Amino acid sequence: MGILRIGHASLRVMDMAAAVQHYEKVLGMKKTMEDKHGNVYLKCWDEWDKYSLILTPSDQAGMNHVAYKVEKDSDLDEIQAKAEAWGVRTEMLPEGALPSTGRMLKFNLPSGHEMRLYAFKEYVGTDVGTVNPDPWPDDIRGAGAHWLDHCLLMCELNPETGVNKVAENTQFAIEVLDFFLTEQVMVGPGGAIQAATWLARTTTPHDIAFVGGPRAGLHHISFFLDSWHDVLKSADVMAKNKVKIDVAPTRHGITRGETIYFFDPSGNRNETFAGLGYLAQRDRPVTTWTEDKLWTGIFYHTGEAVPSFTDVYT
Amino acid sequence: MGILRIGHASLRVMDMAAAVQHYEKVLGMKKTMEDKHGNVYLKCWDEWDKYSLILTPSDQAGMNHVAYKVEKDSDLDEIQAKAEAWGVRTEMLPEGALPSTGRMLKFNLPSGHEMRLYAFKEYVGTDVGTVNPDPWPDDIRGAGAHWLDHCLLMCELNPETGVNKVAENTQFAIEVLDFFLTEQVMVGPGGAIQAATWLARTTTPHDIAFVGGPRAGLHHISFFLDSWHDVLKSADVMAKNKVKIDVAPTRHGITRGETIYFFDPSGNRNETFAGLGYLAQRDRPVTTWTEDKLWTGIFYHTGEAVPSFTDVYT
Amino acid sequence: MGILRIGHASLRVMDMAAAVQHYEKVLGMKKTMEDKHGNVYLKCWDEWDKYSLILTPSDQAGMNHVAYKVEKDSDLDEIQAKAEAWGVRTEMLPEGALPSTGRMLKFNLPSGHEMRLYAFKEYVGTDVGTVNPDPWPDDIRGAGAHWLDHCLLMCELNPETGVNKVAENTQFAIEVLDFFLTEQVMVGPGGAIQAATWLARTTTPHDIAFVGGPRAGLHHISFFLDSWHDVLKSADVMAKNKVKIDVAPTRHGITRGETIYFFDPSGNRNETFAGLGYLAQRDRPVTTWTEDKLWTGIFYHTGEAVPSFTDVYT
Amino acid sequence: MGILRIGHASLRVMDMAAAVQHYEKVLGMKKTMEDKHGNVYLKCWDEWDKYSLILTPSDQAGMNHVAYKVEKDSDLDEIQAKAEAWGVRTEMLPEGALPSTGRMLKFNLPSGHEMRLYAFKEYVGTDVGTVNPDPWPDDIRGAGAHWLDHCLLMCELNPETGVNKVAENTQFAIEVLDFFLTEQVMVGPGGAIQAATWLARTTTPHDIAFVGGPRAGLHHISFFLDSWHDVLKSADVMAKNKVKIDVAPTRHGITRGETIYFFDPSGNRNETFAGLGYLAQRDRPVTTWTEDKLWTGIFYHTGEAVPSFTDVYT
Repeated sequence: MGILRIGHASLRVMDMAAAVQHYEKVLGMKKTMEDKHGNVYLKCWDEWDKYSLILTPSDQAGMNHVAYKVEKDSDLDEIQAKAEAWGVRTEMLPEGALPSTGRMLKFNLPSGHEMRLYAFKEYVGTDVGTVNPDPWPDDIRGAGAHWLDHCLLMCELNPETGVNKVAENTQFAIEVLDFFLTEQVMVGPGGAIQAATWLARTTTPHDIAFVGGPRAGLHHISFFLDSWHDVLKSADVMAKNKVKIDVAPTRHGITRGETIYFFDPSGNRNETFAGLGYLAQRDRPVTTWTEDKLWTGIFYHTGEAVPSFTDVYT
Repeated sequence: MGILRIGHASLRVMDMAAAVQHYEKVLGMKKTMEDKHGNVYLKCWDEWDKYSLILTPSDQAGMNHVAYKVEKDSDLDEIQAKAEAWGVRTEMLPEGALPSTGRMLKFNLPSGHEMRLYAFKEYVGTDVGTVNPDPWPDDIRGAGAHWLDHCLLMCELNPETGVNKVAENTQFAIEVLDFFLTEQVMVGPGGAIQAATWLARTTTPHDIAFVGGPRAGLHHISFFLDSWHDVLKSADVMAKNKVKIDVAPTRHGITRGETIYFFDPSGNRNETFAGLGYLAQRDRPVTTWTEDKLWTGIFYHTGEAVPSFTDVYT
Repeated sequence: MGILRIGHASLRVMDMAAAVQHYEKVLGMKKTMEDKHGNVYLKCWDEWDKYSLILTPSDQAGMNHVAYKVEKDSDLDEIQAKAEAWGVRTEMLPEGALPSTGRMLKFNLPSGHEMRLYAFKEYVGTDVGTVNPDPWPDDIRGAGAHWLDHCLLMCELNPETGVNKVAENTQFAIEVLDFFLTEQVMVGPGGAIQAATWLARTTTPHDIAFVGGPRAGLHHISFFLDSWHDVLKSADVMAKNKVKIDVAPTRHGITRGETIYFFDPSGNRNETFAGLGYLAQRDRPVTTWTEDKLWTGIFYHTGEAVPSFTDVYT
Repeated sequence: MGILRIGHASLRVMDMAAAVQHYEKVLGMKKTMEDKHGNVYLKCWDEWDKYSLILTPSDQAGMNHVAYKVEKDSDLDEIQAKAEAWGVRTEMLPEGALPSTGRMLKFNLPSGHEMRLYAFKEYVGTDVGTVNPDPWPDDIRGAGAHWLDHCLLMCELNPETGVNKVAENTQFAIEVLDFFLTEQVMVGPGGAIQAATWLARTTTPHDIAFVGGPRAGLHHISFFLDSWHDVLKSADVMAKNKVKIDVAPTRHGITRGETIYFFDPSGNRNETFAGLGYLAQRDRPVTTWTEDKLWTGIFYHTGEAVPSFTDVYT
């Protein structure tokens, strides 16, 4: 009941051919559809719904919206009522507003990011099928990403003006969308300012994350890999394809994730990360990172500030 | 709301000192408590509740009961009502029936196995804490198991007499306990007999499993490791400690798990396995294994029958 | 100066198409040549000489000969002189006795196995080249074996009649071919019988091995993988291709190798193993395995006897 | 015959207690000796000779000398004659010039670095012994480095004045010490300047390396790990111990090594790297890196220049 997981992200790209090449050859996704507006839809081999990524032609990078899948169609009505009661205006888009997708509840998070919820998307199956499946398909491409796992949204945070969209988003996600908080960064005097949060609906460490910055934007969309070995392979694949790597293989303190950050040809940041990390649970105490250990939380190995990692986003 | 995860298993052991040595030195658990009856309580480093394993002195091996933790105390009342309505007799044990544990809803699964549910257990914290935690503690012991992950219960299955406790347990787990089915083995004419099932409450491939056999019993309790590399280390640790290994490192087709099976000194089967496998979801189609591929499902690499693996249990 | 490494093995196969399919699709070799007699030549992607495996059509499995490459052409003359002086009859085959290969010094080891030495084979290059090479090629196939690494020859050992071809081969390999001993199994009263030996010319734990048995034969040829993760992938590839697996992933005590054994379609045993193990050096003391720990040496994890592993060979 | 491998490095440290703590707790070495001058001797668990690292108290960091072990005592005389004939002045230090070590041939490489060769060092054994050894000892500490593997020496290179100590050292190492070249970086017009070289005596990709820079110095000493997984563990250990990390986990194009660079408390650069890479052989063609791909050779994943990596050394 309620949100199951991230369903898809809709990203703006400036060179569609280069973008498709990137998500297919480097991430290992497959194009499953293209619409008459030139939007391209792709999925990972271990996903069963028709697409998890929409690329839309644009003259600048960034995210149009992020969508999460709910279990039941009636969840949309329930969440709509709760969101409106919370003070968020919503709109129910009719079936077909996106191809192969049922009706969508559309609203903006307090941070301004557009979020959509839907209960139905055309089922096409994973690449290994449901009867006596192999653990992985024969034609793994590139990094062989399993699935789109989560996104991290940059939210306006300005202690001087009292604006904290991280805290507002977090409150909304918990109260209306029934996420639970797994980790947070607390900064400022007395550690009173919630500057970043990680929240889950699955029992993995995060399905969405909010981080404070000067303006709203997309920090990254993230894809799941099985192991640290696959992280190395993923980095090797990026090198072979001249992908712009932002952060070479390392570990996050936050979520324990083994990770690489890199950019698609338009400058949208991607992540491939590996490992469950830990079993996220509603009774597991929230992990808190203090301001002095913020960079250890981000880059566990060096613990050093890399300003571009938090300053550059789309 | 409802069941969160496996909470603990209560196992009978014939030599307590040898058993504690096994679970501490090989699995890497820590003894957290001992009661006046000589029962010993242990936990893994990545668990936050006081214990996940109870060892009770006995003259034969086997499982006394398995317990699952629910989110809210009121879940116990709701599940009790549903279980009674389904036709299962229940009993509410008062707080303190087990030390450091709240009231427990006790009942037998259709297969006869005793299950308990509880909402409260004393919090003691993981070994890495909740503020700026390291990804793993300094004093990892043995295989360094993260947590008790699931159990597999052998259930009576006799097609000739029409007894199928696998199917009954599965129906009960879905209808009363709100598990969802992730994988199943279908055998017999037309593949009509549900001979084994894997079910989840978390978004990992299984939190409990039921497999058909001549009589009810415990097949194994299973502990989580992070990676295939940790599976090798785990096997090395077993070799150093002269542990009786049942199945050397291999992969399951079912759940994709990377695994080793072995026995504690009393003959209770343990598993250490690695990897998330896949993200289990209520809208992910159930994976079905057919009778001719049963052993590929069990031991993916060889695909060969190892009768002792399904015939020997406690 | 002297022997560099194993150069190739010549194996008999009963179904050439099935054999080529096996070595190409499972091991990941590439056919580089076929001669008018129907012999097929293959190499691994990380090898630079034209072939490391010759498959010859036959009505029974087994090894025709094993060849090692020497550094200089003059090494052949020097070794010939030493071998003859040691009492081994030799023959110098002219250039072209094998295609793309220089003259070969041919002789039988004391065990009766045919060995050949050569200084020249046509250079074709690795799949990554020599200028700014990637660490691995884009079109890795199957297990992606790096190179043929070593072979293990079964040698007649009969303590009752005093026949010990293991010891004789070992003495010959050290005195004439300048191998050095890295590990040995000593059995019988007082551990006086050298029942198995591992010897090196490179600084890896073995380039050849001799093990005692009722008759001479080939135990296995072995291919190098980079890591334990690649061993898992290799086993997965075998499962997908219905390869007969002899021993699922495990570790040897001897050489520390992480390994899988399996059979080609004709029944010739193959190994894929991973890891350097240790740096083999002439001043590193020989590792000795005693009779009571023989099976721990062979299968470190279980330490249990698997008679078919030493009894079945071609 | 000739050089076997790197034997030890003698490093200057400014805070002995901090240095010993670093090499013991982070690298996992063990102190085996201390002399009356306050020099501390350490070894890795997988080494059998008494020490591979000498720490000497000083007021600045850097390398005193690097020593390589030869197979036979007479090799020292032969190399001495060849070195003198080549034009390098040598000195034979008597047994006991270093404790537990035989006579040493001492000379300066053309670059000015002091090198010593010796044939004897006290044998103390690895931590797993030579009879039925486990693959690794129970008390692995920190990163659990197996052995000191190689060093990289910075050599004066000034194309304007025609000084190229990289090329001179390489020629000396090949002609006098019988190393063979595995990889090189060629820069300048026509790629005519040999700006960096990697050379081997073992069959691993390098036992010594020379890189051009403004002045002679030590770039790093390097320790061997088994796998990419151990590289992650090694980085985690560094984070726990607040080690200054220079380069987070990545892969070299050169040698294919999986690596981390970091500093000891005095500022001497260390490396832990994993994997054999490839089998180095005298008939394997030299790998050449061109100037435009230099940084791909150094940091394969990003391919980006990190000037501090080549500019900062002791």
